[in-house]
Order: sequence, then C-alpha cells, then structure tokens
Amino acid sequence: MKINVVTNILDANNRIANENRAFFDEKKVFVINLMSSPGAGKTTLVEKTILALRERFRIAVIEGDIQDSYDAERIDKLNIPVVQINTGGACHLDGNMIKETFAGFDFDNLDLLITENVGNLVCPAEFKIGENAKIMILSTPEGADKPAKYPLMFGESSVLLINKIDLAPYVDFDFEKARQSAHAINPELKIFEVSCKTDNGLKQWFAWLTAAIESFQAGREKG
Amino acid sequence: MKINVVTNILDANNRIANENRAFFDEKKVFVINLMSSPGAGKTTLVEKTILALRERFRIAVIEGDIQDSYDAERIDKLNIPVVQINTGGACHLDGNMIKETFAGFDFDNLDLLITENVGNLVCPAEFKIGENAKIMILSTPEGADKPAKYPLMFGESSVLLINKIDLAPYVDFDFEKARQSAHAINPELKIFEVSCKTDNGLKQWFAWLTAAIESFQAGREKG
Repeated sequence: MKINVVTNILDANNRIANENRAFFDEKKVFVINLMSSPGAGKTTLVEKTILALRERFRIAVIEGDIQDSYDAERIDKLNIPVVQINTGGACHLDGNMIKETFAGFDFDNLDLLITENVGNLVCPAEFKIGENAKIMILSTPEGADKPAKYPLMFGESSVLLINKIDLAPYVDFDFEKARQSAHAINPELKIFEVSCKTDNGLKQWFAWLTAAIESFQAGREKG
Repeated sequence: MKINVVTNILDANNRIANENRAFFDEKKVFVINLMSSPGAGKTTLVEKTILALRERFRIAVIEGDIQDSYDAERIDKLNIPVVQINTGGACHLDGNMIKETFAGFDFDNLDLLITENVGNLVCPAEFKIGENAKIMILSTPEGADKPAKYPLMFGESSVLLINKIDLAPYVDFDFEKARQSAHAINPELKIFEVSCKTDNGLKQWFAWLTAAIESFQAGREKG
C-alpha cells in the first residue's frame, strides 16, 4: 500500500521532470542538480563555481531549503539571478517545485542553471527535476563508508566531489576506500578531490562542467 | 492530495509508535531514538555509550540503515544484542520497522534500547518509533546554521550533542550561534559539546542518560 503511493508520486514526478527537461533543452540551458548531506559545502561550491565561470557562461541558481533564504541571500550578493524554494518540510526538491520557479528567470539569456537541493543524502536522489546531470558532494568528515550506506545517490550522480580534503588528516578519511566503494556502485562516476576552503582541486571540476556545458550547447545547435 | 497521503501515513505510524511505547513501558525499557546527518558520529556515540554504561544498565541496540550491516557488526563486537533494520531505500525508521524487531530481543532483561536511525537530518524527525527521547547529533563540520535550516529535528529532540568539537578550530564552528539558534526553536533542548574521538564532554551525556533512565524506572515502579 505504502509502496504504491510512493510509486505513484515518483511516476507523476518523472512526467513533470521530463517536461522541465524538454523546456530547458528548448532554451539551451544546462541544468545541474547539486546534492549532499547537510553541511557538506554545497552553497560554497556554488559560489566558487559562479566566480570561476561567470565570465564564460550566464548562470542562475535555484536554492532549495526547508525554510529560510540564507543561501539565496549569499548568491544574490554575487549579482546572480536566484530563486529560493522553501519546501515547507519536504526533504527534497521535485519537478513541480522547479517548474514553479520558471517565471523567475530569463531563460533566453541563460546557459547554466545550478539547482542546490535540500541537504539530504537519501531522498533527493529519487526525484528527477529535469536536470542534465546530478552532482553530489561527500565531505571528508562524513567518512568513507558513505557510498556503501547511501548507494542510490552515488549511483545516480555523474560527478562526486570529495570536499573538505583540507580536513582529511584530522578525520582519517580513506580516499581509496571511498573511491573503490563509489566506483563499485557506479563505474562511470567522475571523482574530484577538492577543498572549497583552499580551492585545491576545484579547477578539475570547473573544467569538467565547462566541457559538459559546451558539449550540450554544441548538441543543441545541431538539433 | 500529496499532503493527505503524508498525513495518513503519519497517523498510521503514530498509532503503531504508541503501541510500541506501551509495550516498552510494560517491559520497563527506556528507548532512545538517535538521529543525525550521515557521518555525524552516531555509531561511535553508541559504542562509547555502551562502554560507559554497560556495567550499570542492560543495553540493546537497533541499527537502522538503508542497506548493509556494518554498524550492527560494530555493535556485535561489543557483545551487545543488536538487530539490523535494512529499510531498503526508505530514508527513516518508522514504528512498524521497530515492531518487527521485537522477536529479536529479550525485553525482560533489558533497561535501555538504543535505536540508531538512518543518517538524515530531515525525515526521521517526522516518524515516532515509540521512543522516550529523541537524541540528535550535529557535528561541527556541518556548520552552525543547521538548526535554522532543519528546525524540525532540533524542535523534536530532548538532547543535542554537538560532536567533533576537536575539529571546531579547523571549521570555524560558531558554538554561540548554534546554541542560540537551537534554543530559539526549542528552549528545553539540552546541549552537550562532545568529541567521540577524544571523549571530551561525554561524561555529561552519560550523566544525563543515566538520570533519565533512573527517573523512568522509578516512575514505572510506582505505576
């Protein structure tokens, strides 16, 4: 009974997510869905990514939080278009919430839409929003056992950013275990080791994202 | 429509949780529901609590994970009765899952049942399991803004353990902000600053738990 309900919700969500994706494709906007546990460094990564790529791409941001608008205020300070979604208790963004933000953006003048999901290593992975790529962060203090314990998000993501590598010596983070465990779930997963505090390793992420957007745009030109 | 579904699930869960609670009361077993983000230190706290209190109380553990039994294996090494719940994708424990474990324990020879929930700062707070107290961990790398962003769990909990205080200097954790923000949501919340790595501050937690169990047992004797 309970499983049927969940299935129906997911089916309905997939339909809306596919509509969102068709809309984004039409507008040639590349969309990422950024996910992690609370406090892994999502908003700081968004800030760093904006600062690195804003000369090259026109960027906008959707901030997803249960309540409040602290994260959106941080993005607004960078003079980047941002819409805050308050889920009002819900533990993830879904396709319909994203659709509700459409009036808030000028999609004809946009290349990249960064969507920051609610901090949660479980539920957001189940709900498509119309993204081109799911990007996830695992921070070193969380531990290297997390791929084995929360496999769905590692399986669904295109990129894993292992963040807070500056803290790795203090938390005995086992990079090899994390990599092997993540790749056992998802052999295609790109893994970058970064610190949003020291900027260490972020260039690899910027290069991956730049290439992904350019490849998407080239594909849309042909179409 | 979606909200109605959630309400029905929560109502059904509350009924089962209340039945569990009546059973635990009858058996004079004090039950805690331990919750946090992934990697905040739940299992290590359970281990430390067992080692500190096993001479005084008869303890058992329920480990909740989406899959795998790594945490239960850690508890089993301490020769403590443990049952692993695999939620099979679900992001929280619920009353019925707890009820399903009853055959695995000898409740007549038990004082304390520690239930470790799935790592998730959102959903577990919505689902009662029949516990006497919800206990939550916030680890310093997650940041002091978490009470404002994930208020329900802070509102529902009796105790907040701020863990990994050994990392606080490296992550600029603002203890005052965390305390004020948590108490704004829940003025009754007991807050202990601890490190499960150095054992710093853990004595306060052991003292609180000991007093809570003894008070519960005294109340049941009278009844």
